[in-house]
Amino acid sequence: MQRVSATKEAILAAALELGALHGISGTTMEQVAERAGVAKGSVYYNFSSKDKLFGELLTTGVSKLAQTLHDARLSASGFAGVEAMVTAMLSLLEANRALSKLMAAEIFRTDRAWQESIFALRREALTEIEEALVPLVPAGTSEAMRLLMAGGIFGATLMGGLEWLLFSPQTPVSDVAAALLFTLSGKLDAGPTPPTLG
Amino acid sequence: MQRVSATKEAILAAALELGALHGISGTTMEQVAERAGVAKGSVYYNFSSKDKLFGELLTTGVSKLAQTLHDARLSASGFAGVEAMVTAMLSLLEANRALSKLMAAEIFRTDRAWQESIFALRREALTEIEEALVPLVPAGTSEAMRLLMAGGIFGATLMGGLEWLLFSPQTPVSDVAAALLFTLSGKLDAGPTPPTLG
Repeated sequence: MQRVSATKEAILAAALELGALHGISGTTMEQVAERAGVAKGSVYYNFSSKDKLFGELLTTGVSKLAQTLHDARLSASGFAGVEAMVTAMLSLLEANRALSKLMAAEIFRTDRAWQESIFALRREALTEIEEALVPLVPAGTSEAMRLLMAGGIFGATLMGGLEWLLFSPQTPVSDVAAALLFTLSGKLDAGPTPPTLG
Repeated sequence: MQRVSATKEAILAAALELGALHGISGTTMEQVAERAGVAKGSVYYNFSSKDKLFGELLTTGVSKLAQTLHDARLSASGFAGVEAMVTAMLSLLEANRALSKLMAAEIFRTDRAWQESIFALRREALTEIEEALVPLVPAGTSEAMRLLMAGGIFGATLMGGLEWLLFSPQTPVSDVAAALLFTLSGKLDAGPTPPTLG
């Protein structure tokens, strides 16, 4: 990993905080400088534009997500791989709440300067889930269909995770993972079962 | 339903188009007036502020989503109710692409003037799914846990649906519903099955 200066880190942290609060369009480079406690020139020295600044923030975040999903996928096989990915993604969301909110709002924008790199990394993250699905779906299933399923699992984890962090943050990550995986386990389709959940 | 004037409708349609393209912060009342082909004074006559304009757009959209989920839930019982809700939501997303994109970006914002009404309606939509889950989960499951599961199903449908509309819009809604419901059916957990999907 590239060495990041303390100033650059302070700028990225300030941009993240303000972006999660007011949106990227609602955040100015002046505000970032003020929040980071650095001169405006210093912000422009490190990032030539607001697009560059938020682009780096978001691509770093999505790249970390893809890497986390990759590691989780290799940690277990079969459906346990899916379970590991859902749990690892929830832990990552919990550890990066502001970034998760920002990514949720940005991930389907199509008008941003950083769109190409975000889309490529987003596809990389989805492909990690899609690859874990290969042995779990019927042999004739197309890649497009597996990607849709992967999008569903990704969306369930992201939305369930944000719902958790905003409205019941006291719930432990293991309970949240259990609730989401319950919906993916086919137990819904089977009707009520005896063990108590939550 | 309230009678909406042709001018008001043109303003709402222009705001939706611009908001989906440039974000709400990146859209001005001047641009809305120009796109709608009306005078700026006419925009302000119908909506006293940009917040009021987008607030109405979003609350109407989320309200329609809640109503659609409600109708689908009553159309079938057991897991078939969940299937009906996922399919109905996908059809609604397909018929309202721009609004779906805008809602996806706004649904977890916490800094908006319309936040309270969106949160209330969002909770209403989630509660529809949550109620369909009551007979499908263990008796001791808490409402908070059912809401997390509902958030997961909602997120799977929203993200899977946006993935579909952006990247494989030629796929029929029935195939998308089948792919998402496959992940919720427990068939993933069971390993590959003979029938071909997609």
